Amino acid sequence: MDDAQVERAKRRAGESAAETVDDGDVVGLGTGSTAAHAIRALGAAVDAGRDVVGVATSHQSRAVAREAGVPLQPLAAVSRVDVAVDGADETLPDGRALVKGGGAAHAREKVVDAAADRFLAVVDERKVVETLSHPVPVEVLPPARSAVAARVASLGGEATLREAVRKDGPVVTDNGSLVFDCDFGVVDDPERLATALSAVPGVVEHGLFVGLADAVHVGGPDGVRVTGG
Amino acid sequence: MDDAQVERAKRRAGESAAETVDDGDVVGLGTGSTAAHAIRALGAAVDAGRDVVGVATSHQSRAVAREAGVPLQPLAAVSRVDVAVDGADETLPDGRALVKGGGAAHAREKVVDAAADRFLAVVDERKVVETLSHPVPVEVLPPARSAVAARVASLGGEATLREAVRKDGPVVTDNGSLVFDCDFGVVDDPERLATALSAVPGVVEHGLFVGLADAVHVGGPDGVRVTGG
Repeated sequence: MDDAQVERAKRRAGESAAETVDDGDVVGLGTGSTAAHAIRALGAAVDAGRDVVGVATSHQSRAVAREAGVPLQPLAAVSRVDVAVDGADETLPDGRALVKGGGAAHAREKVVDAAADRFLAVVDERKVVETLSHPVPVEVLPPARSAVAARVASLGGEATLREAVRKDGPVVTDNGSLVFDCDFGVVDDPERLATALSAVPGVVEHGLFVGLADAVHVGGPDGVRVTGG
Repeated sequence: MDDAQVERAKRRAGESAAETVDDGDVVGLGTGSTAAHAIRALGAAVDAGRDVVGVATSHQSRAVAREAGVPLQPLAAVSRVDVAVDGADETLPDGRALVKGGGAAHAREKVVDAAADRFLAVVDERKVVETLSHPVPVEVLPPARSAVAARVASLGGEATLREAVRKDGPVVTDNGSLVFDCDFGVVDDPERLATALSAVPGVVEHGLFVGLADAVHVGGPDGVRVTGG
């Protein structure tokens, strides 16, 4: 796919997931370019009279939702999330395990996606792989960074502190934490790695989402296919 | 034990652990009244010429160390922690599992205690139990609080947001998070609960320390006994 085809594939995936949102739903709004297409499609549905409330996962998704006209509530103020629509940096075909966090919003994304009755991953087909190998973003409490890097190494990974652009020093997340991009090579057992990373003291959250997605809406050059679930 | 006996028991436990610190050690300094006795004993050793560097786990332990004259380094600046000395709200006799976090410092405490080559728990004998039942403090990202409370309920616990004293609203930790005190009743399988809590999205850290302590220094009315290890 060329750049224009990729953009159309992302839009198809986002719109496909947005179409499954029912009237009255509370919707988790994911972060990233594909999720943004879903948010814009929801905004169009709201314009057409559909009654939905969005819950943002990041400053970015909040901004897209405001521009698109999706009414927002804070996560802490809603009693349920019916469906979450969120992108992925890499996903298994059935969505059983996926990696998120290129945008460093994965902690709040995971909270929302896990709270949702249905979590729909939206990706263009380049993101679908048979085996995960994308570096796993790991959000850490700043004083724990050396200790966490050592633990990641003992789990077979190489932790690189994510440096900021347009800001001196490292990236600081919306929670005030730092991000390591942790390269484990091929991840043969995502569930095991996810459990091990969660247990490391000082890890706020990591970007491996295991057993959370209910379906994957995959955009390609000629259409969308829905897998998993 | 009456109050004065408890205080002496705490002092004995703290001093006993401090005595095991070697010249040249980097020492993790725990939070709470028993750990404070260990820090003061270390300060006396420094006065007498012992060469140690402390790593504080909280504002409180930093303040005690400064007053006691223990030189400090930030955790991120040290390449190793040789020994950590820290209190517990409740511990199994061998220290295999213990509960910490009455002081809401358990995230940084766990980072330091887990990073240490040796972790010595220091308690008075009232804290030693055959089965843990103390509520488990769980530190959460503020926007995740409803979602985390629901997950704690599904794990059989009751989550109560810790309200602050001398500040309106809830306690805010040194990391900017909130604290739930989660009552699970009797905890039959601390390892399983620890793994489950770590995996809940939005949980920064919890106060169950499993497999971390190398020994427990237990102060009583007549002396100290060292268990576990």
